[in-house]
Amino acid sequence: MKPVAVILSGSGRADGSEIHESVCTLLALSLHGLLTKIFAPDIEQFRVVNHLSGKMTDESRNVLIESARIARGDISPLSALRTEDVSAIIFPGGLGAASNLCTYVRDGIKCSVESTAEKILSKAMKERIPLGFICIAPVLGAKIAEKLGKNILLTIGDDPDTAGDIEAMGCRHRISKVHEAVVDKENHIVSTAAYMSAKNIAECYSGIGKLVEAIKELMN
Amino acid sequence: MKPVAVILSGSGRADGSEIHESVCTLLALSLHGLLTKIFAPDIEQFRVVNHLSGKMTDESRNVLIESARIARGDISPLSALRTEDVSAIIFPGGLGAASNLCTYVRDGIKCSVESTAEKILSKAMKERIPLGFICIAPVLGAKIAEKLGKNILLTIGDDPDTAGDIEAMGCRHRISKVHEAVVDKENHIVSTAAYMSAKNIAECYSGIGKLVEAIKELMN
Repeated sequence: MKPVAVILSGSGRADGSEIHESVCTLLALSLHGLLTKIFAPDIEQFRVVNHLSGKMTDESRNVLIESARIARGDISPLSALRTEDVSAIIFPGGLGAASNLCTYVRDGIKCSVESTAEKILSKAMKERIPLGFICIAPVLGAKIAEKLGKNILLTIGDDPDTAGDIEAMGCRHRISKVHEAVVDKENHIVSTAAYMSAKNIAECYSGIGKLVEAIKELMN
Repeated sequence: MKPVAVILSGSGRADGSEIHESVCTLLALSLHGLLTKIFAPDIEQFRVVNHLSGKMTDESRNVLIESARIARGDISPLSALRTEDVSAIIFPGGLGAASNLCTYVRDGIKCSVESTAEKILSKAMKERIPLGFICIAPVLGAKIAEKLGKNILLTIGDDPDTAGDIEAMGCRHRISKVHEAVVDKENHIVSTAAYMSAKNIAECYSGIGKLVEAIKELMN
């Protein structure tokens, strides 16, 4: 069985991967008996945020090195990911997905995707490898789909601004509840709102559990 | 209902709280409908480790600020914890528990406990407030029990060196499997091996789930 790739973007909701979403994803995959392989790009973070004060700092940190905290050291650079070696690819949320993996935080719908992530996502979307997007990460899928001229179905919960941006990038958006995952069966894409809507970690886990189930079905 | 306090010691297994253990603890508490309040001491980390290379760095980081990443910003300094305001206290593992919350990593059984943590743990142990210790964190409980002259029961799984240290500090050690939690009903103390034994996050979660169940029973 080929592993499911999980792509991290740092370690912390404000400048990296949302930690609860990342760990809930790894837990759900592990409880389903699915092998996992974790990747992150070897690049500097767009910013470093003090998560106590919420303020930016003048520190610099590396996305791969910080992601290794969530991965317990068992992580590879994103450039080592070959789509033929994995059975699915999942992107947890956190503002790292929207500021390190792409420039959505500063550029909105005109964002660009980090070059390695763009190559892998474009290839995977063309090959219909099951893709999972959590929380804010659907903006990554939307931008790639726009470039490929694909009209994919996504959810980010019920936030009208982000939903509008996804539609402005040529995708369909479906409003969803926190315990749901939205499945685009034709394009093999699953998304869930997680902390776009979740009021606690149990709610976060409920939607991510559904996303992992749906990814597993698409793999078969 | 008073919240369950979760005490963090940074964010990352080699220099802070083990992230999977911390998130699994928060998830299990949330799934049981228990309120949670997260604390960490406002002190410098003993060390900062690059989790990709495993090597020490010359950076300095603050335990409270880094713990805020796991807590999504919703965290208080440990000095604000009053034992009368909480229904139980849980310590996830990670080497931060043994190097920031106490000096076990460098001093072994002659370690000292961080002053705020020592005050709170001593008071809580005397008052029989349910205490949960995960992975390496039982060494904290052992050191406090030694000071109080209490013969508490703990587990760190089946690692003979750490088990020997716990016995050398005057406590009883019970060998346990990864999916078990060991309960000291008399002293209201629960412990589980987690990543002292776990081969994956599903195993880690199984024991932590048992620990949270046992803590909940002791609270009633």
